[in-house]
Amino acid sequence: MPQTLSAGDRLQLFRAEMARLGLAAVIVPTSDPHLSEYVPAHWKIREALSGFTGSAGTLLVTPDAAALLTDSRYWVQAEKQLIDGIELVRLTGRASAAATEWLAAHASPGGIVGVNAEFISLADGRLLESTLMLNGLRLRTESPDIAAFWPDRPAMPASPVAEMKRPGRSRAEKLAAVREELGREKADAALLNSLDDIAWLTGLRGADVPCNPVFLSTLLVGPDRAALFIDTRRVGAAVTERLAADGVMVLPPEKLAETVGLAIEHGRRILLDPEHTNAALAKLVPPASRVEAVSPVFTLKAVKSAGELEAIDEAMIRDAVALAEFYAELDERLSAGEKLTEADAARMLHASRAKDPEFFDESFTTIAAFGPNAALPHYTPPAEGGAVIEGDGLLLIDSGAQFTCGTTDITRMTPVGTPSAEMKHDVTLVTRGMLRLLGLRFPKGYTGSQIDAVARMDLWAEGRDYGHGTGHGVGYVLNVHEDPVRISPMATKTPLAAGNVVSDEPGLYRPGAWGVRVENLMVCEKAETTEFGEFLKFRALTMMPIDTRALEEPFGALADQLNRFNDERLERLLPLVSERCRRWLERAVKPVSRD
Amino acid sequence: MPQTLSAGDRLQLFRAEMARLGLAAVIVPTSDPHLSEYVPAHWKIREALSGFTGSAGTLLVTPDAAALLTDSRYWVQAEKQLIDGIELVRLTGRASAAATEWLAAHASPGGIVGVNAEFISLADGRLLESTLMLNGLRLRTESPDIAAFWPDRPAMPASPVAEMKRPGRSRAEKLAAVREELGREKADAALLNSLDDIAWLTGLRGADVPCNPVFLSTLLVGPDRAALFIDTRRVGAAVTERLAADGVMVLPPEKLAETVGLAIEHGRRILLDPEHTNAALAKLVPPASRVEAVSPVFTLKAVKSAGELEAIDEAMIRDAVALAEFYAELDERLSAGEKLTEADAARMLHASRAKDPEFFDESFTTIAAFGPNAALPHYTPPAEGGAVIEGDGLLLIDSGAQFTCGTTDITRMTPVGTPSAEMKHDVTLVTRGMLRLLGLRFPKGYTGSQIDAVARMDLWAEGRDYGHGTGHGVGYVLNVHEDPVRISPMATKTPLAAGNVVSDEPGLYRPGAWGVRVENLMVCEKAETTEFGEFLKFRALTMMPIDTRALEEPFGALADQLNRFNDERLERLLPLVSERCRRWLERAVKPVSRD
Repeated sequence: MPQTLSAGDRLQLFRAEMARLGLAAVIVPTSDPHLSEYVPAHWKIREALSGFTGSAGTLLVTPDAAALLTDSRYWVQAEKQLIDGIELVRLTGRASAAATEWLAAHASPGGIVGVNAEFISLADGRLLESTLMLNGLRLRTESPDIAAFWPDRPAMPASPVAEMKRPGRSRAEKLAAVREELGREKADAALLNSLDDIAWLTGLRGADVPCNPVFLSTLLVGPDRAALFIDTRRVGAAVTERLAADGVMVLPPEKLAETVGLAIEHGRRILLDPEHTNAALAKLVPPASRVEAVSPVFTLKAVKSAGELEAIDEAMIRDAVALAEFYAELDERLSAGEKLTEADAARMLHASRAKDPEFFDESFTTIAAFGPNAALPHYTPPAEGGAVIEGDGLLLIDSGAQFTCGTTDITRMTPVGTPSAEMKHDVTLVTRGMLRLLGLRFPKGYTGSQIDAVARMDLWAEGRDYGHGTGHGVGYVLNVHEDPVRISPMATKTPLAAGNVVSDEPGLYRPGAWGVRVENLMVCEKAETTEFGEFLKFRALTMMPIDTRALEEPFGALADQLNRFNDERLERLLPLVSERCRRWLERAVKPVSRD
Repeated sequence: MPQTLSAGDRLQLFRAEMARLGLAAVIVPTSDPHLSEYVPAHWKIREALSGFTGSAGTLLVTPDAAALLTDSRYWVQAEKQLIDGIELVRLTGRASAAATEWLAAHASPGGIVGVNAEFISLADGRLLESTLMLNGLRLRTESPDIAAFWPDRPAMPASPVAEMKRPGRSRAEKLAAVREELGREKADAALLNSLDDIAWLTGLRGADVPCNPVFLSTLLVGPDRAALFIDTRRVGAAVTERLAADGVMVLPPEKLAETVGLAIEHGRRILLDPEHTNAALAKLVPPASRVEAVSPVFTLKAVKSAGELEAIDEAMIRDAVALAEFYAELDERLSAGEKLTEADAARMLHASRAKDPEFFDESFTTIAAFGPNAALPHYTPPAEGGAVIEGDGLLLIDSGAQFTCGTTDITRMTPVGTPSAEMKHDVTLVTRGMLRLLGLRFPKGYTGSQIDAVARMDLWAEGRDYGHGTGHGVGYVLNVHEDPVRISPMATKTPLAAGNVVSDEPGLYRPGAWGVRVENLMVCEKAETTEFGEFLKFRALTMMPIDTRALEEPFGALADQLNRFNDERLERLLPLVSERCRRWLERAVKPVSRD
């Protein structure tokens, strides 16, 4: 067993390998072969070489220089963690442009820049190749052997893979839908690389990535049969049998290249999504046999079925009960004078959710942020401690759960002591923005970038705004961030459609003082068809009411909408919660007035 | 002098020339060498060959077939006007895609498709070439000689060219600004082809195109001097001298190629805008000497100067006086039982405006539309007649003027008899949409496509919408439609900026029944800079109040905003108008209530 090395030791070994390969520079992205948002420890190569543990950043290494490129969320953390000899490049624009610029300044002209093809999408690889070429550098999909510089690498995750308890729709139905889309694209097969696409299509779940119930695998969907490439020991005999009944064979990963090769020999045209397929995997399919297109699973899974939505409604009630019980306990303990930290609050919330037999994980690390910490949109408290929740202020808790019947994501603002009038005004403006978007009707065909302004108008009127998108798609017992649906000022190509589950989370951040975010999940539904066309609307899925103690009075024009929202939730929750929680709900959630 | 030919005669001569040139098909766009929105009679080739007089459409001709492609505005008109043997292709999507499809079906594979390079932009030509190639056809920039098939062609317009009375900013200032932008693009010179760009930069105006005070010319702007290519007799000696003082030489069009050639010999890098330069002109500049970029004039002229805005404010008062006097007269004559038609109304409005010594043209043909005619957004009444304005309904008048101090564009709704509650409700919703956009504050950097929804929200809430954009840029004593600023759901790249003059014109159309549009011009201004960044707002420029008799009571949440809008206008107008008009204003414009 090799001893644990330091990041500096590994970087030295890495450079020795670079020299052997004749590389002028190497790009180390934060990625895995599935281009996942959350990277398992086994692929935290950038962290192993740099010491920086943040979830985003690109490491660039030459024989005598190195740089980490990361965005403003991580500048303070990176400064603390980066080992000597790695420069911090503060990203404000596109990472690819900044990377090319740094490489052009630090690698000699004509030099070869290496990158591991497994960690970059086909599309990004092409873009990188052309921008490097414009800067006099060449790209080669080669990089130091991981075993050579990281002998103490953590093992591959290998959690058990099981069938979903509440599939929402059958595997056969989903396979048929995907095959129909493949036909439309004039493809015979699809090679799937995104872990959530594979989990969705197979109706299986694992636990290989924290918070994301996915499992490492690759899937080839053919006209009649499909092959799931995975360590076969991870799939039990019963599951293997049921997969076979639906025409899905379980094969070891070593068979992948051979199986794809056979399909090509049989004249199959294989669809691969250049944005979601790593460049190494894409090489298995020669251009003549390739259909490059958006993965049909990518768009199909964003439209939730009636069965999935019925289950999600149940998850929302379960989550609201856990949340309300938690808030009641928190209030009681704070009122009793207990000194509780942000980490304590996160732990208490976890414990409350964990009482539910259908809960199995968080959908992301809880953001419990009090006072100035809440002004950092991506703050997470340390495992122990964090700010003490005391005095006068606002407590922001953004959290989510994985239930066997759905994935949740919610942000609520709770008053601590007596929040100032300014704080309450900010919470009021943000709550209004959340309600405006929730109450919007809009024509079919509109994208999230065309309606995002509706959530911001009230803030803009007072010269305020927030620097993040308003909403993201959410998976069904799957990733809490699920593309392609988004509500954001950035141009998005995919129109909103009935069945999309999306968050509605405007915010407002006062650096050094306080921060506000209010978030619900909602589902897009058909509203009506008139002589002017088809109209869509949203229905709020989240069942936890809004704590009206953090709002100013009067609330203004949207008071009726807020009161209806809260009444509907109280009516469902009050019969399900403890006596302590019932008293808390009656205290914290009151009707607001319009004028 | 040749005799007047019929469209059929010309088409026959056209086909004979096609055969001589060996062309399998020819594309005849609605265009001129300056790619103008309104085409002078001299270049109405598509009309001369097809009989169709509408302002948009593409004619495709093969030896034995022909088709006119046009959008829904013109289907009825085209059916009536097209000569025998020309098929009407009803466009619902992109013209280029439909044209390629028709050509692929009607021209033999490998055939050569001709187009006159003068009538197509460099960018569109490239796109056309590649889409035709994908369909097995080849593009050649060659087409029948116009003189050969149109001997009775109207002469080139040659109106006198004069300096602006109210330039708003000096020629020297504008030339300096353009040269600064050229430096930023690493270009030494610019070749300008758009007539409004040339009019803006030279501070000259003509009358070559109806409603657009431009003159046919081409402009080469070099580092120290500029050359205006135009029939030199059209520019008087005094103007020529003042142009020379600013370094602008007036040269005959025959000198263009030679002058551009000399600049290239001197190593000048010449900027040309591929979207706004015809393909024939672009050929004068070989790729090595070319900088392809958005014309700096295109973006500079959209930002109005303080001097221009001061003049525009004056134009708006002049226009409002003329409009209010017209509406007072119209109401009086209608009340007296006179039978007036839409054409009468348009003529009366023209006469009222023409009393102002600073008025010199309409900025577009007046849309006076009563009852069902108003449901056609692009309806214009015939020169004589049109619907009689009588009974109960809504009169929509969308009109604009060219004053020496500014260009106007306004739509107002007037009740005739007793409009129904439904009609008033529609006018109320549209007026609210107009006010919401006018009252919006938004962050700098936002484009029109990101805020367009604000004008539609109130309509959407009731399942209503309109099929056109909400706003277009407006020139200063120039074209009433001025790119690149637009407010529309279609993605626009250019962010709104302080100084942009743009229309705000939501609508609602009930086919066969009535139509509503309410339009003001407004200017984008800085609102405030806060810790969240810089914010912009709009200020209404149009000084004509809103006729509140067409609105329902109560008006709702935006009543105060509407009352303020009207009060500010009444205060300015009442001292300037006749006694009859004063009485009319007091009757037609009253405070509305909120609840």
